[in-house]
Amino acid sequence: MAALPAAVRIVEVGPRDGLQNEAVALNVERRLALIGRLSDAGLRDIEAGAFVSPRRVPNMAGSGELMQQLDRRPGVSYPCLVPNETGLDAALEAGCTDIAIFAAVSETFSQRNTGCSIHESMDRLARVAVRAHDAGLRVRGYLSCVLGCPYEGAVSDEAVATLSAELIAMGCHEVSLGDTTGVGSPFRVRALIDCVARRVPAERLAGHFHDTWGMAAANVHAATLSGVTVFDASVGGLGGCPFAPGATGNVATEDLVYLFDDAGVYTGVDLRKLVDVANWISAQLERPVASRVARAFNSGRPT
Amino acid sequence: MAALPAAVRIVEVGPRDGLQNEAVALNVERRLALIGRLSDAGLRDIEAGAFVSPRRVPNMAGSGELMQQLDRRPGVSYPCLVPNETGLDAALEAGCTDIAIFAAVSETFSQRNTGCSIHESMDRLARVAVRAHDAGLRVRGYLSCVLGCPYEGAVSDEAVATLSAELIAMGCHEVSLGDTTGVGSPFRVRALIDCVARRVPAERLAGHFHDTWGMAAANVHAATLSGVTVFDASVGGLGGCPFAPGATGNVATEDLVYLFDDAGVYTGVDLRKLVDVANWISAQLERPVASRVARAFNSGRPT
Repeated sequence: MAALPAAVRIVEVGPRDGLQNEAVALNVERRLALIGRLSDAGLRDIEAGAFVSPRRVPNMAGSGELMQQLDRRPGVSYPCLVPNETGLDAALEAGCTDIAIFAAVSETFSQRNTGCSIHESMDRLARVAVRAHDAGLRVRGYLSCVLGCPYEGAVSDEAVATLSAELIAMGCHEVSLGDTTGVGSPFRVRALIDCVARRVPAERLAGHFHDTWGMAAANVHAATLSGVTVFDASVGGLGGCPFAPGATGNVATEDLVYLFDDAGVYTGVDLRKLVDVANWISAQLERPVASRVARAFNSGRPT
Repeated sequence: MAALPAAVRIVEVGPRDGLQNEAVALNVERRLALIGRLSDAGLRDIEAGAFVSPRRVPNMAGSGELMQQLDRRPGVSYPCLVPNETGLDAALEAGCTDIAIFAAVSETFSQRNTGCSIHESMDRLARVAVRAHDAGLRVRGYLSCVLGCPYEGAVSDEAVATLSAELIAMGCHEVSLGDTTGVGSPFRVRALIDCVARRVPAERLAGHFHDTWGMAAANVHAATLSGVTVFDASVGGLGGCPFAPGATGNVATEDLVYLFDDAGVYTGVDLRKLVDVANWISAQLERPVASRVARAFNSGRPT
């Protein structure tokens, strides 16, 4: 056994990164029900919403209302995505204690996703981070396209390392490295993490993998071997319909729990309860459940 | 980068292990077309058939006829599965030069799958192996249930090591370690391979993973880190319908090629041509293609 951690922390991003990419819109009440079920299954970090344009991202509409109505459980954090100071104002008004900010590693992706250069984007985030810290909030950083950009192709590991260090320097408690298009493969993941870890300790990095090319579980395993112990995941593999060509969902939370349970690595999550949540949310979205673990579980496959 | 091999060998088992678990039957002509397309895509080890009861495994009917009609390409091996001496007689008559023999690590699975104990099964295989070698054939060994048995649950790594050594001792050129129910996870795969490699060099082991629980690519990566460089796979993830609950297909060949291509590890396989084969065979089986790589490719996802 190589580099087996005693425990990992799973950041459930289904109610935000997952739902924002789903075709069926869920109202605040149903998103609250999802978040409640996820914490019942043992998840302790649940990304709850985003203060972004509801026109651009209809499934995040009402995030303020959601945060105000949320039954916050002790020991559970509910970060919300904040793109700029206007978003921060809304997050503060809604009583958020945790926010997440994001930048991209590729210029073209940055321009298309946030309407500004990487440099301008980092300036904007630094202003958000300073104000957030002044208000006592905890700030998480996201970097997207760390293993490839849909417009530019290959990206530089060194650029990922530099931007990660900048996010830590502006006060992020950790940086989540996002393989936005799911193109990464395990050998490259290790090379990336080993490069970034020369600037930011691996304990402050999180892995955020999408399963577009079927590599997500392998990439999680690879990142673990390089010392990463925090992983983002979406219950049911939300974010990509399994029946659509080129599904682009996050790695399914239940796949990660299965992987780590089998190795005796503590996640705090009850797999059976989690699969129930995956089935429930898939029904809400009017589609079959996407993850292999949930499907194997549902069909009574022996473990 | 850790333990990156320069090249790996992929043993394409789609025409045998894949098809035998598919509901739609393909006649000899179509199976020959599949084998031809696979060698066109660059595969050099293609499991072509099985000399088993056509009543029990309808999709392997006519394996003798298939081997006689096969256009054998130089440098390509076409092993056929042989369960006993009757099967060996048929393989010899059909002009096979490569056979594969199989045993299970669990007593219950052995009884149910081969109708005898592990010990009796190994005796039977030894007789097959001796006669096959006398006839100049190359013999590959398979062990099933190496990471868990659907009836007995956990199996012992030591038992896998002992049986692997016995197969090598009876003259098998390599032993393919089969996670028949796809329950294995990467950390346990490494522990298993490291244990078996104390008895049989890792260069003589192959990894045979099923994707039932979504762990196959991760398991391949893990096995590579323990020195394994030969992997079994089925084009299109044949062997489990993606739309059936609890699909149990082999890991898709294109997923492995993607994984290794991305790391610069030579496979000899042309990914684009292979995805065409995956699409073609899935159409023959009247279902959408199962693998994430083929679906991502088909939808024009950026790599």
